Amino acid sequence: MVTLNCDMGESYGNWRFGDDTGIMPYIDCANIACGFHASDPWTMLKTVRLALSHGKNVGAHPSLPDREGFGRREMKLQPEELTAAFLYQIGALTGMLVAEGGQLSHVKPHGIVYGMAARDMDTARAIAAAVKPFGVPLFGMAGTCHETAAQALGVEFIGEFFPDLTYAPDGSLIIPRVQSAIDLKLAEDRMSRALTRNELVTTDNKVRPISFGTACIHSDPPNARDVAALMRRVIDTHS
Amino acid sequence: MVTLNCDMGESYGNWRFGDDTGIMPYIDCANIACGFHASDPWTMLKTVRLALSHGKNVGAHPSLPDREGFGRREMKLQPEELTAAFLYQIGALTGMLVAEGGQLSHVKPHGIVYGMAARDMDTARAIAAAVKPFGVPLFGMAGTCHETAAQALGVEFIGEFFPDLTYAPDGSLIIPRVQSAIDLKLAEDRMSRALTRNELVTTDNKVRPISFGTACIHSDPPNARDVAALMRRVIDTHS
Amino acid sequence: MVTLNCDMGESYGNWRFGDDTGIMPYIDCANIACGFHASDPWTMLKTVRLALSHGKNVGAHPSLPDREGFGRREMKLQPEELTAAFLYQIGALTGMLVAEGGQLSHVKPHGIVYGMAARDMDTARAIAAAVKPFGVPLFGMAGTCHETAAQALGVEFIGEFFPDLTYAPDGSLIIPRVQSAIDLKLAEDRMSRALTRNELVTTDNKVRPISFGTACIHSDPPNARDVAALMRRVIDTHS
Amino acid sequence: MVTLNCDMGESYGNWRFGDDTGIMPYIDCANIACGFHASDPWTMLKTVRLALSHGKNVGAHPSLPDREGFGRREMKLQPEELTAAFLYQIGALTGMLVAEGGQLSHVKPHGIVYGMAARDMDTARAIAAAVKPFGVPLFGMAGTCHETAAQALGVEFIGEFFPDLTYAPDGSLIIPRVQSAIDLKLAEDRMSRALTRNELVTTDNKVRPISFGTACIHSDPPNARDVAALMRRVIDTHS
Repeated sequence: MVTLNCDMGESYGNWRFGDDTGIMPYIDCANIACGFHASDPWTMLKTVRLALSHGKNVGAHPSLPDREGFGRREMKLQPEELTAAFLYQIGALTGMLVAEGGQLSHVKPHGIVYGMAARDMDTARAIAAAVKPFGVPLFGMAGTCHETAAQALGVEFIGEFFPDLTYAPDGSLIIPRVQSAIDLKLAEDRMSRALTRNELVTTDNKVRPISFGTACIHSDPPNARDVAALMRRVIDTHS
Repeated sequence: MVTLNCDMGESYGNWRFGDDTGIMPYIDCANIACGFHASDPWTMLKTVRLALSHGKNVGAHPSLPDREGFGRREMKLQPEELTAAFLYQIGALTGMLVAEGGQLSHVKPHGIVYGMAARDMDTARAIAAAVKPFGVPLFGMAGTCHETAAQALGVEFIGEFFPDLTYAPDGSLIIPRVQSAIDLKLAEDRMSRALTRNELVTTDNKVRPISFGTACIHSDPPNARDVAALMRRVIDTHS
Repeated sequence: MVTLNCDMGESYGNWRFGDDTGIMPYIDCANIACGFHASDPWTMLKTVRLALSHGKNVGAHPSLPDREGFGRREMKLQPEELTAAFLYQIGALTGMLVAEGGQLSHVKPHGIVYGMAARDMDTARAIAAAVKPFGVPLFGMAGTCHETAAQALGVEFIGEFFPDLTYAPDGSLIIPRVQSAIDLKLAEDRMSRALTRNELVTTDNKVRPISFGTACIHSDPPNARDVAALMRRVIDTHS
Repeated sequence: MVTLNCDMGESYGNWRFGDDTGIMPYIDCANIACGFHASDPWTMLKTVRLALSHGKNVGAHPSLPDREGFGRREMKLQPEELTAAFLYQIGALTGMLVAEGGQLSHVKPHGIVYGMAARDMDTARAIAAAVKPFGVPLFGMAGTCHETAAQALGVEFIGEFFPDLTYAPDGSLIIPRVQSAIDLKLAEDRMSRALTRNELVTTDNKVRPISFGTACIHSDPPNARDVAALMRRVIDTHS
């Protein structure tokens, strides 16, 4: 049973980001930013309320400590520093859940540290070590250090597929700095193919196997809501 | 049974603050800074470890979001913003406790917001509202809005006495920007008098009643460790 | 000769704010955010380039150190702290101007500190003291502490009028948290009346005299560009 | 004529760092932190005043935007971002100098970005590009990308020697996270050898040539003042 997840609560103070309200009805799991790359306490609280009012699963979406770079600039933290930074952020989100009567559902790392952890075991372990005490699954890329580290530390792992992004020849994700409108037909094809054949197509037109339990969409393309509604329909059709 | 508490973990990154290691053995309750006026995730984690290794109670020491001002500059937040800021910080500390197998013991607000909440019910309520879902006591000044708000919201309240600070004629605290060495004889006298007669003396030499369940000392005077050892002895003698 | 000014460069990292590109052709003076309430170094540099490429005057738009609150939450800084914070921000903007071959034209304080300085001489003096060494005019509200402090310190003062905001009965500005579309007819009437009769109408329908040398518009209403074009036309017609 | 320089103004808000007052009399050039890895506007202003009151040269000591990591954690910024970040910081310091009637003397990059720029031409160029418009020399390591980039962009370059640090076999600096007391005899020997023979000894006991016009000491070892006084004496003796 594949779920649909989305990174949410990525506004910050006076700045808006993403169509959280439009997307929330269609997803299963809200990955809520924890204040390091985006969000602030009040935004987090309101986003948790929104998700819980729709009966959605609430997960933490922690990041490197780099708000100006939206968590997309590589930074070298020592593994213990990274674990502490993630414990802090996951804890902060659980504070909101305690207040609103919800429970932490999962953890999904944000941005560049997601890619760094896919390639580097020290980073992946530091992240898994922060997830373990909360007893929830870690979302990540199957077949990378994400999965290996989770298994090594006894953390449940759920693989992700990204129907609204392109994959490089090596299977890594290509993340645009500014999201333009998603090609709905293309996203639908990718999602269907992944669901029915467990495969994706890279930018060099090669087919790669993909193992996943959840599909991730983004809140900031102009047609994010339409993408969400469509992915919901595709997933429901194939489940 | 009066306890001894101290604000701890107030270093930040490369900057050191306070003799946490020297003081920890003598206190009962460590109020650990949560990253808004001081501390950072790694410092918090190490401070939680230190406190738990000594078998001490670990509480959260949240603040206004003002690191440069060490939480000592008044800022006007909307009540919901303040509640969210405190939920965030208390949650972040519980994240460290989840990782280290400890439990949140109490909450004590830091710096200027402590004084603001003593005078202003909206501020006091916003804070009590953030403590309530965690089901732990709030440390504050008895007879001020701290206590009224806690009672109104059904939050357990524990009054504080400050043997290493002076009290203004109106009973409010005078907090020096830089701590100089504490007069040990004076601190001992204040502590004994508070314990035996439940009273303190203000700067205009008037006696005021003081109701308290915990005594607070600070980690940054040059002789903080001696103050801690002495207060420990005085409390143990009178209990 | 009345000029038209606008607060600009108020994006931050990945977050967008305001239609700078659309508005720039119509204004005379760009007040560029300096990184404390909005903007970041790269955004500042690009905004300075945009303004200079249109041949516009570039001024600094410094603020209280409160990015999360967009400089709209009151904070109590000591006067010397505030002066230092403004010197820092104005200096940072001049750094961009040195690189791009431009010159600082003026300074306009942002957000809540603008209102605080209108009412409070210590705040107004602290700001004027930071502007003085740069030898440029300060934009502010005529007849308030802005003007008094500027005169006392020998800083050139230019009064502002806000055709896209409403004035409270006491002559202070009412600043909406989120800008909705500006009523163009109303803004045109206000601007014309101010230009031809030097008066404005407050929310209680009273007429107040207004002395000004520059009119300020905002970049974030949905129709900001239309407002800019219209104000340009009205000013040019009456000059 | 070799000068003596020191990184200064590295306190932050309530946190103290370094014996600026004790060291200032002995040095020629104060490299003042600009708020990204350390310092804040008020600390900068007071440090500029201290330096100017001693008649010292004031330079900017800009850094990566990482206060929690004291500018010692690698971060990948795009070259234009880095240039903008440095323009911002150098400009901010010149703001303090404008207010205090001083002039910018030089620029010295701080921490990890100093090492990154020694190895990487893109980083070195981005830094030199930010120094160039100010028309002052850049302090750096001779024979590395620092010097090559400065020459390529027409920026005056002054090589540095570090008598209070050890050099790795490849000639790079070994920077301790916490400074312990400096061995005065060793520092004196290194300084004399560098001045008289233009050579240094690496950790593997090899001799390397060193070309320099300025010697850098640090403000945070416990005996920083003694180191400063000694280096002053050694330099004066050999000049």
